[in-house]
Amino acid sequence: MEFTINQVATMLGGQVKGNGEDKINMLAKIQEAKKGQIAFLSNPKYEQYIYTTEATAVIVKKDFQAKKDIQSTLILVEDPYISFTALLEQYHKMITFQKVGVEQPSFIGENAMIGSNIYRGAFSYIGNNVRIGSDVKIYPHVFIGDDVMIGNNTVLYANVKIYAGTRIGSDCTIHSGTVIGSDGFGFAPQDDGTYKTIPQLGNVIIEDNVAIGANTVIDCATLFGDSTVIRQGVKLDNLIQVAHNVEIGKNTVIAAQTGISGSTKIGESCLIGGQVGIAGHLVIANKTGIGAQSGVGKATKEGQRYTGSPAFELKEWFQSYALFKRLPDLSNRLRELENKVRHLHNNSETVIK
Amino acid sequence: MEFTINQVATMLGGQVKGNGEDKINMLAKIQEAKKGQIAFLSNPKYEQYIYTTEATAVIVKKDFQAKKDIQSTLILVEDPYISFTALLEQYHKMITFQKVGVEQPSFIGENAMIGSNIYRGAFSYIGNNVRIGSDVKIYPHVFIGDDVMIGNNTVLYANVKIYAGTRIGSDCTIHSGTVIGSDGFGFAPQDDGTYKTIPQLGNVIIEDNVAIGANTVIDCATLFGDSTVIRQGVKLDNLIQVAHNVEIGKNTVIAAQTGISGSTKIGESCLIGGQVGIAGHLVIANKTGIGAQSGVGKATKEGQRYTGSPAFELKEWFQSYALFKRLPDLSNRLRELENKVRHLHNNSETVIK
Amino acid sequence: MEFTINQVATMLGGQVKGNGEDKINMLAKIQEAKKGQIAFLSNPKYEQYIYTTEATAVIVKKDFQAKKDIQSTLILVEDPYISFTALLEQYHKMITFQKVGVEQPSFIGENAMIGSNIYRGAFSYIGNNVRIGSDVKIYPHVFIGDDVMIGNNTVLYANVKIYAGTRIGSDCTIHSGTVIGSDGFGFAPQDDGTYKTIPQLGNVIIEDNVAIGANTVIDCATLFGDSTVIRQGVKLDNLIQVAHNVEIGKNTVIAAQTGISGSTKIGESCLIGGQVGIAGHLVIANKTGIGAQSGVGKATKEGQRYTGSPAFELKEWFQSYALFKRLPDLSNRLRELENKVRHLHNNSETVIK
Repeated sequence: MEFTINQVATMLGGQVKGNGEDKINMLAKIQEAKKGQIAFLSNPKYEQYIYTTEATAVIVKKDFQAKKDIQSTLILVEDPYISFTALLEQYHKMITFQKVGVEQPSFIGENAMIGSNIYRGAFSYIGNNVRIGSDVKIYPHVFIGDDVMIGNNTVLYANVKIYAGTRIGSDCTIHSGTVIGSDGFGFAPQDDGTYKTIPQLGNVIIEDNVAIGANTVIDCATLFGDSTVIRQGVKLDNLIQVAHNVEIGKNTVIAAQTGISGSTKIGESCLIGGQVGIAGHLVIANKTGIGAQSGVGKATKEGQRYTGSPAFELKEWFQSYALFKRLPDLSNRLRELENKVRHLHNNSETVIK
Repeated sequence: MEFTINQVATMLGGQVKGNGEDKINMLAKIQEAKKGQIAFLSNPKYEQYIYTTEATAVIVKKDFQAKKDIQSTLILVEDPYISFTALLEQYHKMITFQKVGVEQPSFIGENAMIGSNIYRGAFSYIGNNVRIGSDVKIYPHVFIGDDVMIGNNTVLYANVKIYAGTRIGSDCTIHSGTVIGSDGFGFAPQDDGTYKTIPQLGNVIIEDNVAIGANTVIDCATLFGDSTVIRQGVKLDNLIQVAHNVEIGKNTVIAAQTGISGSTKIGESCLIGGQVGIAGHLVIANKTGIGAQSGVGKATKEGQRYTGSPAFELKEWFQSYALFKRLPDLSNRLRELENKVRHLHNNSETVIK
Repeated sequence: MEFTINQVATMLGGQVKGNGEDKINMLAKIQEAKKGQIAFLSNPKYEQYIYTTEATAVIVKKDFQAKKDIQSTLILVEDPYISFTALLEQYHKMITFQKVGVEQPSFIGENAMIGSNIYRGAFSYIGNNVRIGSDVKIYPHVFIGDDVMIGNNTVLYANVKIYAGTRIGSDCTIHSGTVIGSDGFGFAPQDDGTYKTIPQLGNVIIEDNVAIGANTVIDCATLFGDSTVIRQGVKLDNLIQVAHNVEIGKNTVIAAQTGISGSTKIGESCLIGGQVGIAGHLVIANKTGIGAQSGVGKATKEGQRYTGSPAFELKEWFQSYALFKRLPDLSNRLRELENKVRHLHNNSETVIK
């Protein structure tokens, strides 16, 4: 993956100033870039580095006026940050999707229907009756149970575990160690104090464009025909717990280590912080914001922000918390008042008598 | 797995009303059931669906009186919900235990003693001197270290990791990604600011009928001969942390993302919510209830319920929290009182003088 | 691994009293030890057991005076506890490092450079251009991506996942299920409500002598050339979340289920409890102590201890929390005062009029 500066400039619709035939093979920050690398200058406070950088090329703003000599070839663009990000994405796509073919040993069950341009890493396991689209990347140690369906362009990193019956859309990314479709946590108490397992017979449905971090767990729904559903565009971080029958609305973003209890429905475009706990059977409205470490015990209102455990409106919670910090002061003032009032009372008795 | 309605009715001890020779192969909810499926009607508020459902069969109460025509064949039973649950369980058992035999490649060490009717998935690993009972299901990518013992009917889902020396009972279920027997977190501070690893040489013992969710971790005990112990009937959810030398009493249920620190003993039949933290070296009494996100820092009393961080008695905590919410009001009233008392004081001075 | 008592005494620099040619093969607690095992007596309250133990050998203090007959052979040393710990460590090292050689099937990519005395378990996967030192133990199901570098004496337990480009030092231990180098959680909001993935192109660097528990996740840095860095001597427990671009200073210890948000720099020799959340872009000073379940939202001061969510100084927080518990009392006293003041006010009106 090596390009000439001219090739990169063409991709970015930019103009070359310097030697366009020099080759670059990596992206870097301007203050650290070496020969063969390309950097960018967007924030003026980094301008100093453009005069000393070893970068072979630097992406700069169209109207950039150098104050000293510059060794690097320049690519002039409208917005250097956006151009650099576009390059990063391109590079990332190339890296992520360069793996193709089947490494051995790998396992594939009966009746599998698998598209073209697939990567199946060594020790990956595909069960019976599995349907997988094209351009899917299945890294080593991935487990895909029976009857699973997966769309196109989805990437399953090393060791993702997909239980039987799960459906995953296109353009999804799931990171290592994440488990999709494990049993919901359902046990019925018996008279003798033991618990009987409630069979978990639903599945998990993950729509398109969903990203899921590492070591997260999404349980299947309890009943046949029911699903735990992750709608399109949802982004889940690492080590998140999604219980049975939960539904997460589209474009909702949830940070690491948050847990969502059974049967809760989360709306669209919510922003949920890390280590949040949400109780079961709740409705979280669209565009709800929830602060890190909150515990949500009741339904929320659209567009409102909550924090605390149990959570209530963000602004009010912080007012209460500010006073929590000042409780020793409040307590002292209360005691002082009591003394004063006792004194006044005694005086007033005296006066009245 | 296809049955006639007559066969199902026989299993349930029910009576058929309609064509008992029709075949069913799946269970479903009455409002969604299709041809070939069986549903149930228990809650009267769903009665409307029985007149429109496409289900081939519906399980209803013995004395059910239809108000309109019904297309489906009926199975009359004492309690439709219990009958349906029994069917679900039967089905679940068939699904879970249908896998038998050895897929290749799989690895098995020396001196392994393995019972009959085993499933060993591809890429499963069994170390040396391992003893496994009958009807055990070992899914792909499971790792079983040296000297491990496992009872009968236990299911280890894809990618469960069992460290050397662990003992697991019969009728246990352990979900994907769970790690049993990793090192306890023990480090001795040295004079130079570094920490020296305290070797972790004990093991983990899991008794019968224990269910463990996905990506949970149970550390081994520190000393030789010591064990971290999970007693019979315990149910652990996903992403739980159980530190070295912990003991969890029988039939205790713990929800997701809870963490239990080293050497704490948890009693029997406790109910512990999600994201709870329990400090080390504590004794949690039998039948203790602990609310989600609580932090337990001292011993509990039998049958009591706790919440908060640090936790105290549930009812008292909620009284305090209700007032926490009203702190701005309390603070205003305090300020007002201060003004009034200042005023009274001035007046009283006046009067007395 | 069987030794004579004389051999063990030589290792410990101790003196044998009894039959030094008897053989021992295991360590045990004095109250549970059996024939063939070695125990120790340090705490006087366990002295009773030395007269009844079946242990073949017991390590005792040099000047120990028996009050009754002892069956076991004694090894006399300066400090029995330290000697026993040294034995444990020796034993642990032998156990951990006894695995050598390559089990099949295992996978190794192109251009791998691997040192001597390596264990590569079955189903382990090593990508292209990987460099691994000597005496490294790679358990079954480990995944090592392309371009990874690993030092000497490092142990990767079953199912550790190392993404491409990660660098790991010498003498590290990483437990099962831990993921190193997964994508940071970065998404840019778009006008249509969707999120665009920000490519994550940095890596993770783990220095020497680092221990990491099971099912922990460490994300890679966002930009090329940037790294998420775990400095030498750091100890991380299970189920911890370390986000992109975090740096953890040397000899810092972090307990289970804690989460550290992106770009936060944690100092040296900090002690961080379990289930703590630390916000992004913060600087945590050296030797900071943070109580379990705290939520840290701003920079800390060196050597200070914090707790609460949001966290503030430990001592002050506990003062506030003590008053939180007494809020019902405070509230009652406030109401009582209000009544008294109203009464006084009325009286004073009377008097003044």
